[in-house]
Amino acid sequence: MEFYSEAINRLVEELEGLPGIGSKTAQRLAFHVLNMPKERVEQLADSLTTAKEKICLCKTCFTLTDKEYCPICTSQNRNKKLIMAVENTRDLVAYEKTGKYEGVYHVLHGAISPMLGIGPGDIRLKELMERLQGDVEELIIATNSSLEGETTAMYISKLVKPTGIPVSRIASGVPVGGDLEYIDEVTLLRALEGRTLL
Amino acid sequence: MEFYSEAINRLVEELEGLPGIGSKTAQRLAFHVLNMPKERVEQLADSLTTAKEKICLCKTCFTLTDKEYCPICTSQNRNKKLIMAVENTRDLVAYEKTGKYEGVYHVLHGAISPMLGIGPGDIRLKELMERLQGDVEELIIATNSSLEGETTAMYISKLVKPTGIPVSRIASGVPVGGDLEYIDEVTLLRALEGRTLL
Repeated sequence: MEFYSEAINRLVEELEGLPGIGSKTAQRLAFHVLNMPKERVEQLADSLTTAKEKICLCKTCFTLTDKEYCPICTSQNRNKKLIMAVENTRDLVAYEKTGKYEGVYHVLHGAISPMLGIGPGDIRLKELMERLQGDVEELIIATNSSLEGETTAMYISKLVKPTGIPVSRIASGVPVGGDLEYIDEVTLLRALEGRTLL
Repeated sequence: MEFYSEAINRLVEELEGLPGIGSKTAQRLAFHVLNMPKERVEQLADSLTTAKEKICLCKTCFTLTDKEYCPICTSQNRNKKLIMAVENTRDLVAYEKTGKYEGVYHVLHGAISPMLGIGPGDIRLKELMERLQGDVEELIIATNSSLEGETTAMYISKLVKPTGIPVSRIASGVPVGGDLEYIDEVTLLRALEGRTLL
């Protein structure tokens, strides 16, 4: 990359460090930035540092927020006795977008993955167990339907069993609007196993 | 996007404004930034503003550089009588990477596109014509092999003809390593037309 001047090289290298951004995309983005008005570039740079400075984790559910406790945990309209465990804040937001879930969340910040060396101690499981010592009526495990997500779900359900709190798992099956023809065999079998009477 | 806190929303919106970055990618990038060490985020933000502040256009060839004249135009080893016109700095870098071109460049900053309302006056054509009044032995047109690139090449060649300076166009054909089976008809015809005797 000795073809660009120093400042462009540095920008390209910084952008390449972001996930899903390869060398070509980083170059395209860098040149786009150079063509942007100065104020817009400063806004972008400022939004990066501001977000990093202001955002912390909610002390109850560990979602990313800019306050000590997040709006969901402090809301009067949420059922604090219903907890949904999710892998990250993006998954929390995905469920919030449905607008139908009235309980609260617990963000694990990851899933158990022996392959990546992530054990039960590396995610917010201890904190979840502490919350379950309070007045909880149900724990819904909404980790991803991946190997890691399933492992985490199994692990949590075993861990929670002795407390007597009901633990549920979100359903696996054919996505709404999904065409059976294009869906993998494992999902099809899961959908069959999880069938409900009409 | 009312599910995130203010600072995250702002970051996601800023990232969405970049080319090729949609809503989902912007969210993924934003959360990645929040997980990055503070110093790395500051470096990234700084690289954006620094690049924007330092980079200007070379006064001879109009490539992006951090000096008044770029290293290629000031080099003693380049043939100033051979000029290659390219659409943008990325295309210049693509040719520089071959390491074989010994002439200089002229960056047009675009191509003529009646569809997008980009006329001859919107690219650095006037500046190219001025350069051609000097001692130039050949002008190579290396605009893209797209409709806009070809239109620009035709336009420039007609414009330069009266000056008597030889104008050439880089060859179109089958890319090296390309499999004929997967190459479009227009390219195959171009390759046939441009065949050379062995």
